[in-house]
Amino acid sequence: MSLNHYLDAHFDRALQELLAFLRIPSVSARPEHAEDVRRCADFVAERLRGADVHWVEVLETAGHPVVYGERRSSRADAPTVLIYGHYDVQPVDPLNLWVSPPFEPWIAEDATLGRRVVARGASDDKGQVYCPIKAVEAHLSVHNDLPVHVKFLIEGEEEIGSPSLPAFVEQERERLAADWIALSDTAMVRPGQPTITYALRGLSYLQLNVRGPSRDVHSGVYGGAIANPLQVLCELVAALKGPDGRVAVPGFYDAVRDLDEAERARIALSAFDEAAWLAECGAPKLTGEPGFSTMERIGARPSLDLCGIWGGYTGEGAKTVLPSEAFAKLSARLVPDQQPADIAAKLRAHLEALVPDTVTLEVEVMKGGDPVLTDPNSDGVRAFSRALERAFGVPAVLARNGGSIPIAADLMRVLGAPCVFAGFGQDDDRIHSPNEKFELENFRKGIAAWAYFLEELADPPATD
Amino acid sequence: MSLNHYLDAHFDRALQELLAFLRIPSVSARPEHAEDVRRCADFVAERLRGADVHWVEVLETAGHPVVYGERRSSRADAPTVLIYGHYDVQPVDPLNLWVSPPFEPWIAEDATLGRRVVARGASDDKGQVYCPIKAVEAHLSVHNDLPVHVKFLIEGEEEIGSPSLPAFVEQERERLAADWIALSDTAMVRPGQPTITYALRGLSYLQLNVRGPSRDVHSGVYGGAIANPLQVLCELVAALKGPDGRVAVPGFYDAVRDLDEAERARIALSAFDEAAWLAECGAPKLTGEPGFSTMERIGARPSLDLCGIWGGYTGEGAKTVLPSEAFAKLSARLVPDQQPADIAAKLRAHLEALVPDTVTLEVEVMKGGDPVLTDPNSDGVRAFSRALERAFGVPAVLARNGGSIPIAADLMRVLGAPCVFAGFGQDDDRIHSPNEKFELENFRKGIAAWAYFLEELADPPATD
Repeated sequence: MSLNHYLDAHFDRALQELLAFLRIPSVSARPEHAEDVRRCADFVAERLRGADVHWVEVLETAGHPVVYGERRSSRADAPTVLIYGHYDVQPVDPLNLWVSPPFEPWIAEDATLGRRVVARGASDDKGQVYCPIKAVEAHLSVHNDLPVHVKFLIEGEEEIGSPSLPAFVEQERERLAADWIALSDTAMVRPGQPTITYALRGLSYLQLNVRGPSRDVHSGVYGGAIANPLQVLCELVAALKGPDGRVAVPGFYDAVRDLDEAERARIALSAFDEAAWLAECGAPKLTGEPGFSTMERIGARPSLDLCGIWGGYTGEGAKTVLPSEAFAKLSARLVPDQQPADIAAKLRAHLEALVPDTVTLEVEVMKGGDPVLTDPNSDGVRAFSRALERAFGVPAVLARNGGSIPIAADLMRVLGAPCVFAGFGQDDDRIHSPNEKFELENFRKGIAAWAYFLEELADPPATD
Repeated sequence: MSLNHYLDAHFDRALQELLAFLRIPSVSARPEHAEDVRRCADFVAERLRGADVHWVEVLETAGHPVVYGERRSSRADAPTVLIYGHYDVQPVDPLNLWVSPPFEPWIAEDATLGRRVVARGASDDKGQVYCPIKAVEAHLSVHNDLPVHVKFLIEGEEEIGSPSLPAFVEQERERLAADWIALSDTAMVRPGQPTITYALRGLSYLQLNVRGPSRDVHSGVYGGAIANPLQVLCELVAALKGPDGRVAVPGFYDAVRDLDEAERARIALSAFDEAAWLAECGAPKLTGEPGFSTMERIGARPSLDLCGIWGGYTGEGAKTVLPSEAFAKLSARLVPDQQPADIAAKLRAHLEALVPDTVTLEVEVMKGGDPVLTDPNSDGVRAFSRALERAFGVPAVLARNGGSIPIAADLMRVLGAPCVFAGFGQDDDRIHSPNEKFELENFRKGIAAWAYFLEELADPPATD
């Protein structure tokens, strides 16, 4: 039986297993889901054992557990691939916008668009991390062997910034040693176009807490004579950007590496469908830093966005109150060679220099991650490119991605190994949003691509 | 039995009745409390009947009902006083800051500060509106008569801007006809200092809705290439004020009547304790429009305050999302001769001129009310001043108040009668805030002052 016959014959079972995976509400950010997260780790470990991975453990960390798995090839001199992924998911709010409960996955069918599974985590990252698990199972079932040595590192804290993983990786660096790191937690530039991501943005995430009067007070009795924390917060946020939309924080762009003309030309040729991308997200218009294209703005330039803001009366009607406190969550997406701690310090310094003494400001640095830039010509990238072409029938493209996988830079640094990002998501997958989905066609081809990647990495063509 | 003996002998009963009044959660802003609001109207009607007011009705409006009561004096040529008040209360959030449930009133005792009742509505306005009810009861019990004709108009929509009352007053203008309007829904300039308010600010209340992408999207995948509604909202809010803190909306100050030097001098002499006022509200520092004192800023100058703002992720942790929508509630406090509709139009025009086409902006005008300025030398003010001095033992002062009673201007205009505002609240009563309270000493003296006011209005001293 060929690999492909095996994958066809067992795809329905793979899908049923994915649905079971998606039913576990492994929301890492929410303490009330801690037991669900642990249950999800046990589920993944069980599925690795079911794939005939020999050495499987659920390992404790300072936070949620890590699932580790290892299966060696009979070829002792074969390279080792560390496959990273995460089994935790984003929170589900706003819950009222889901058309069905987020942890009751269902298959949506569309005559034109095909079949997709709808659930929180479908694309980010349960559906994607399940691809290499099924690929390894196929090799072991068909050949009773793997082309390369494989290690799995599947964590439960990616969506909260992987706080426990750096220390875990340092401590387990020998166990985790590998020639390649590979993972699927990114998207394709457009449906049907297999894509390898060679750059990811880093992250610096802050919360701003502005406090004025010791309680919410009457806006008539006090309004005009004390500062309003909401007003001050809005003024601070407004001062983060200049009139041209560029970030106005001193030094913010200092470490940004310039794009060379060759890369700009490659980005321009990537056939990114700007109009479709805009229509899909529903914003009235594109905008951004002057002098850069949309692809450059989201992949190669840093950005600064409020993720949330709140304070005062937010119910129905017209309560007249001058609130005591105002809060905002702020996310900076970074590119090489910006450093999260440096950017957080610059944001803090800028805000603290601006805040008036009529309120107090607290800046909490919540999480960070380094940007990643990999060699687009590495053997690993070339092997996955061939695998993607075999699976999808069209050549793969290389792209930058605006998202962040903060742990990727740590893994690369500690293990001293290059990384390959091959993603099977789509921009319209609504990751982090209500009604997240994953295309079944991408799931099927993703499994095949991973199976081929292990072959291609073991046996590169002589002419490659 | 003298009035005062009666009031002493029946004060405990009056207090028990007030506690029963406070137990009814008559939150007019919340549809789920509609039945409580109606029950509260019935309670007030019952208490008016218990006070021996002959003609009592609960009258329907387009919204919550109005309680009407009327009792004529045996002196046919006596003047008529229309006593206005409201039985509805503000919402209670943030509920977690209450030391006890807001609708379970309790008596706090303090060796220095005396006794006070803690509950939503204690000061605004249930405790205050109950003073004239008990004053009328005392007259009728002791004298079986009233010095003047009395009408009660106690409404259930003041805290949502009295939307139904203007039409009701127009329709019932003959029934409501009076020589004086009087009410207790304001505060004293400091504890122990009886105060008549001669000016109140008006109100223009708006909600701003900014919308960008059609759903919350990933801040990495989209950040930098589409506008963030939260950022735009903050920039719009920041543009409402200039660097000196003055409102930067074109034309905002055009209709503001200048303060004359005589009034500025009187305000300066009012012995307002600025340091105590600041300490009580807990803000780090006073601030406001340059060139004006705190008393002028809150009483005689307009102000503009955000009452609430919200959008995006507001939970724990660091969700990385670029939100679809952002909202703010905005309250402008107005002074003569600013008009609410004109100010709302100017705010809308300013915001619509500034908003970029990368988002959509919706401006909802939610409520409004005219500012009020009364004659500080009217016979009604002089009568209530004498009554206050009898009740408190110290002369009353005249003051402006920064709050708004939007319906007052309507009542004065439609009925063609002057108005007297005599308040028994204190600035530290935490109205509209958690742990609202009302001093029992003010309750007792407030009842006496109302009883004396009816006498003083009927029989002014020859020398006055």
